[in-house]
Amino acid sequence: MKQDTRSTTIVFTLCILALGVSTARAADPLPSWNDTAPKKDVIAFVERVTTPGSRDFVPVPERIATCDNDGTLWAEQPLPFQLFFTLDRVKALAPQHPEWKDKEPFASLLRGDVKNALAGGEKAMYEILMYTHAGVTTDEFEGIVVSWIATARHPETGKLYTEMVYQPMLELLAYLQANGFKTFIVSGGGAEFMRPWTEKVYGIPPEQVIGSTIREEYALRDGIPVIVRLPELGFINDKDGKPVGIQQHIGRRPIASFGNTDGDLQMMQWTAAGKGAHLCLYIHHTDADREWAYDRKSLAGKFDRGLDEALARGWTVVDMKNDWNKIFACGKTK
Amino acid sequence: MKQDTRSTTIVFTLCILALGVSTARAADPLPSWNDTAPKKDVIAFVERVTTPGSRDFVPVPERIATCDNDGTLWAEQPLPFQLFFTLDRVKALAPQHPEWKDKEPFASLLRGDVKNALAGGEKAMYEILMYTHAGVTTDEFEGIVVSWIATARHPETGKLYTEMVYQPMLELLAYLQANGFKTFIVSGGGAEFMRPWTEKVYGIPPEQVIGSTIREEYALRDGIPVIVRLPELGFINDKDGKPVGIQQHIGRRPIASFGNTDGDLQMMQWTAAGKGAHLCLYIHHTDADREWAYDRKSLAGKFDRGLDEALARGWTVVDMKNDWNKIFACGKTK
Repeated sequence: MKQDTRSTTIVFTLCILALGVSTARAADPLPSWNDTAPKKDVIAFVERVTTPGSRDFVPVPERIATCDNDGTLWAEQPLPFQLFFTLDRVKALAPQHPEWKDKEPFASLLRGDVKNALAGGEKAMYEILMYTHAGVTTDEFEGIVVSWIATARHPETGKLYTEMVYQPMLELLAYLQANGFKTFIVSGGGAEFMRPWTEKVYGIPPEQVIGSTIREEYALRDGIPVIVRLPELGFINDKDGKPVGIQQHIGRRPIASFGNTDGDLQMMQWTAAGKGAHLCLYIHHTDADREWAYDRKSLAGKFDRGLDEALARGWTVVDMKNDWNKIFACGKTK
Repeated sequence: MKQDTRSTTIVFTLCILALGVSTARAADPLPSWNDTAPKKDVIAFVERVTTPGSRDFVPVPERIATCDNDGTLWAEQPLPFQLFFTLDRVKALAPQHPEWKDKEPFASLLRGDVKNALAGGEKAMYEILMYTHAGVTTDEFEGIVVSWIATARHPETGKLYTEMVYQPMLELLAYLQANGFKTFIVSGGGAEFMRPWTEKVYGIPPEQVIGSTIREEYALRDGIPVIVRLPELGFINDKDGKPVGIQQHIGRRPIASFGNTDGDLQMMQWTAAGKGAHLCLYIHHTDADREWAYDRKSLAGKFDRGLDEALARGWTVVDMKNDWNKIFACGKTK
């Protein structure tokens, strides 16, 4: 009998190891979200689309979620962080480009006057991005980004940029992933600027990062294959470009989208026009103490038409000050 | 005691349910492959990169495999199948385009003279593709493809095109997926021509299909968001374009690549130049009885420089006649 009891114990232990996780009571998946409407909207949506037999059930392969980056997954003030990377690149490259001293927008950037450099508008911004992001191979560019993101610090907070990711959004991504969602970043920022660190920071692999691109070209250098980044615009993945980028990359309409600016509006409209259940969630930056408060008149992250449409259509709007009890993943606030 | 025995039985049953799969002896994952060198190469490679502690171990997120479609996953003779779709589209659209009767390459196509229509070379082919693939929304185009692929039949075999997929390659994809690989199609064919059926036929979801594209534009029609396909070339995902398409879509270098023509050579070179273990496998169409035999001089699927480089570098080359004991998934051969 003793032998039998021991067998039973071993067998029970095996079963606990094998089945234990699913029998544990699920903890709150969104602890940094207050128990206000946005959290309830998110959980109700996920339960509806994942409950077998529910009218709104969505099979796993169709659980596509798309999420903006700047201002949605990490902060974007006083300017989107890729611009600080760009400024550092301009400084690093300046000795090889003596003509930049007298040539806008580079001259302003070298004087540290980012606002004047950007007076040429979006086109000027993309031109600067292009020149500072091209002329190297993709392997070289990845090395430059990896080194910068590991060491560069935000001019106001002194934090590493990756310490300025939003803890509630990390919880949201993990919650969606645990419920069979494939989560994509859909950003106006450069795809190859994000990819070297998104897997580590957000749990999103490079193939699920959709962003703006410059043209690239395959070449053999001394018999070694390289991909060279050319100083020519490829695709601008912003505003009207977001649904197109989603279609060309994913080929399937998202059922959930997350953003914070007018640049995300078309992605939201495209998501909302799907046939089944969907969730459109906008983040409204309302917390000047712990982060930054901005919306309709902001240079970076303008949220005006998007806010009107979100309110008119009853989309979920997160009021950061009231709906999130924690802001940055690193624990510290501004 | 009886009660105890019953409990033990229940517990054992639970354990068998929970753990049974992993204790079953693995069946041959590639039954349609003869026990010749290519099968041994594939299995040895997968075991090396998936064995923890192995010098060549590759973590799951980096197990990226890229696979050509035409001639690699399904047949491509006498012409790539998308051209038969195109011909059917030209016929369907002809009443709306009376001018096509006198305008090449459409005039030749309408007479059924595909070879003359393609005398203008690759550019002419892409021009025809563009015009017959644009002017509709992405939702409309998906419907057209779904309807065509379900009913159109191959002019020589009378089979549905999806019956002409290679059973050994379906087994290879499933084997890679079961070993943690993410499998991508990387084809010169149109991304949106493949995506409506690749998940069902190959187990590859649309977001893992990389192909050639035309430009697309987001628009609101009567307030309803649509994406319109424009008659302008986007990206040609062939030859030099394949490594670039891989980089822009995946952002990570494949460790295994599968192809059958010179159009796949740059993808193979890019894969072979990775730092760790890799597998480059070319399929050589050598079986005129069960399929088609062609290589260096073929109009569709030319395999010349690629064959030379594969032999010189010792890449794996499948001799379809000798290395595959089954060809088409539907069981029938040509």
